[in-house]
Amino acid sequence: MNFRRRIEAIRDLIAGKGLDGAFISSPQNKYYLGGLFSSSGYIVITRESQYLMVDSRYFVEAKAKTDLFQAVLLSVDHSVEHRLNSIIAAEGLATIGFEGKELSYDAVRSLQEGVNCDLFSLDLGKIRAVKEPEEIEAIQQACAIADAAFRHILGYVREGMSEKAVENELLRFMRAQGGQKESFDSIVASGVRGALPHGKASDKPICRGELVTLDFGAKYNYYCSDITRTFALGKCPAELAGVYEVVRAAGDAAMRMAKPGVALGELDYAARKLIGESGYGQYFGHNLGHGLGLQVHEYPAVALESGELLREGMVITIEPGIYIPDAGGVRIEDDILIIGDGCRSLTHSARELITV
Amino acid sequence: MNFRRRIEAIRDLIAGKGLDGAFISSPQNKYYLGGLFSSSGYIVITRESQYLMVDSRYFVEAKAKTDLFQAVLLSVDHSVEHRLNSIIAAEGLATIGFEGKELSYDAVRSLQEGVNCDLFSLDLGKIRAVKEPEEIEAIQQACAIADAAFRHILGYVREGMSEKAVENELLRFMRAQGGQKESFDSIVASGVRGALPHGKASDKPICRGELVTLDFGAKYNYYCSDITRTFALGKCPAELAGVYEVVRAAGDAAMRMAKPGVALGELDYAARKLIGESGYGQYFGHNLGHGLGLQVHEYPAVALESGELLREGMVITIEPGIYIPDAGGVRIEDDILIIGDGCRSLTHSARELITV
Repeated sequence: MNFRRRIEAIRDLIAGKGLDGAFISSPQNKYYLGGLFSSSGYIVITRESQYLMVDSRYFVEAKAKTDLFQAVLLSVDHSVEHRLNSIIAAEGLATIGFEGKELSYDAVRSLQEGVNCDLFSLDLGKIRAVKEPEEIEAIQQACAIADAAFRHILGYVREGMSEKAVENELLRFMRAQGGQKESFDSIVASGVRGALPHGKASDKPICRGELVTLDFGAKYNYYCSDITRTFALGKCPAELAGVYEVVRAAGDAAMRMAKPGVALGELDYAARKLIGESGYGQYFGHNLGHGLGLQVHEYPAVALESGELLREGMVITIEPGIYIPDAGGVRIEDDILIIGDGCRSLTHSARELITV
Repeated sequence: MNFRRRIEAIRDLIAGKGLDGAFISSPQNKYYLGGLFSSSGYIVITRESQYLMVDSRYFVEAKAKTDLFQAVLLSVDHSVEHRLNSIIAAEGLATIGFEGKELSYDAVRSLQEGVNCDLFSLDLGKIRAVKEPEEIEAIQQACAIADAAFRHILGYVREGMSEKAVENELLRFMRAQGGQKESFDSIVASGVRGALPHGKASDKPICRGELVTLDFGAKYNYYCSDITRTFALGKCPAELAGVYEVVRAAGDAAMRMAKPGVALGELDYAARKLIGESGYGQYFGHNLGHGLGLQVHEYPAVALESGELLREGMVITIEPGIYIPDAGGVRIEDDILIIGDGCRSLTHSARELITV
């Protein structure tokens, strides 16, 4: 992983904002910038240096990275404020940015009280938007595990089985295939529960003639996959089969448009327009998708109002859905990589309606 | 669940702080106060009223609670700031407390800019410290699932099996037993990795003659268990068997002292003193324990410096450990309920060193 390049990207960002340093606390950015995935510890990047601040549990590991970072030991006597003040004094820092979307209000207040410089909220969300080859490889592995799990569940699910039992088998299978853990709490929503876009798996038994929506993903090397498929257990009502085709066509339309230079909002618009013209516009109430990487939801949002442009190397989800109260719902979600002249799907499960 | 009593406890708290209302955003407190477990939505409690603010996905569910809460619909046109300002105007509120440890700095800044009253950070951590019978029952169920999982793993583990494979089986088993999900990422640390207090399960194979530390838990009805056991795969080195007895005695000493009115720090002191007298003081680097409930770590900390007193109905962990770098480690953790004249363990796995 190219930590040097990533650290320089932070340096460019803070220079652009007129800041002297960045204080990084989120696990995802500590992993991205220094390979440290932990809820404790901090990375500090100044115009000249970079520091890894950890307590005794992680100090040996941090010392091993001293070609790139200066290791700083945190302890009861040497708090993060104390250590930050030493760096501030040594390098003459006046302003430091912190992750305002990630740190709690109380944590920031405590820093502000103890640290001898001005602190400003800084959004680092965009630094991870374009993925490097190693990152794409990890996401691809995470997608392959999810694809295999979907195939497995198609052979596993039986009439009368609870949604929860299906979730448990999904998770067992993904871990057995080398998934580090699940990317998020799985959604298993059958029959009328399919109308809940975020219907966590329940004790409801899955019945014949119902659609079943599975939304799940695995982590591999800390990178996430996120896939949704809706399948039928036995023949489903004709209206829902029709809804399925609308959702599939909406996703297809968005994916056909996806390439560098296209605004994210245009993808959402293309899918939303198609669903609207089919008469289901009021039943598609969420964004078309989101960025995917170390976090299951990250920059950029694939949202109607977004004028930001797709870039080669971005990985986003495309997940149109139609949710009809008291009837059911359909969502189909793929993870796509933006390439030179279009996009390539990293998830490979069939997009046609499968009846088991 | 006695939501009315809990809401009144919040009302007493804000009155004591001179605040006119509380804005509650954390899933654990929304569940505790209104049965809403969701990352989205808010509860607002004023001196006179209480409100459940949710978007369209949760509005039907919220409306069903209107005997207790006024349901408020959030939408693109009716943001949380907009809805809060209506309540502020209607009830003449001047000050509202928010969960400063839970809300991000940016989220608070955005509220401060949009809301027509003063906002103050408020710590609600203590309101859940004393558990009600229904809560204790849920924790007990979560503990029973963890106990069963430990017994199961003793029969499952084999020489050469990876730590990760043991973790996967732990999780599969707990979910199959009705566990909602795991309380936290499990620790499986064998051999020298036992010296890492937070050694997540790795690909390391478990070898004969090693100690294996499992630290894991299940959720049941949103309540957590958290248990640690260290067992031996074949005969372990005599020093580590001795360390085991020290750790066990330290936990026993703390549990013997636990009863209403005793300071939390005294429990930590009793365990730490015993470990120190055995010559291993430098290898016990963390607190003795923590409160347990809707969160796996919650108020109160069982820490040396804590002068706060145990109360009947508190549930805490007792988890002394000794971690010897490059040799291995032992931790034994139980979940105890403070009762009238002492404590009762909610975890029932044997505390003696088991060799499989």
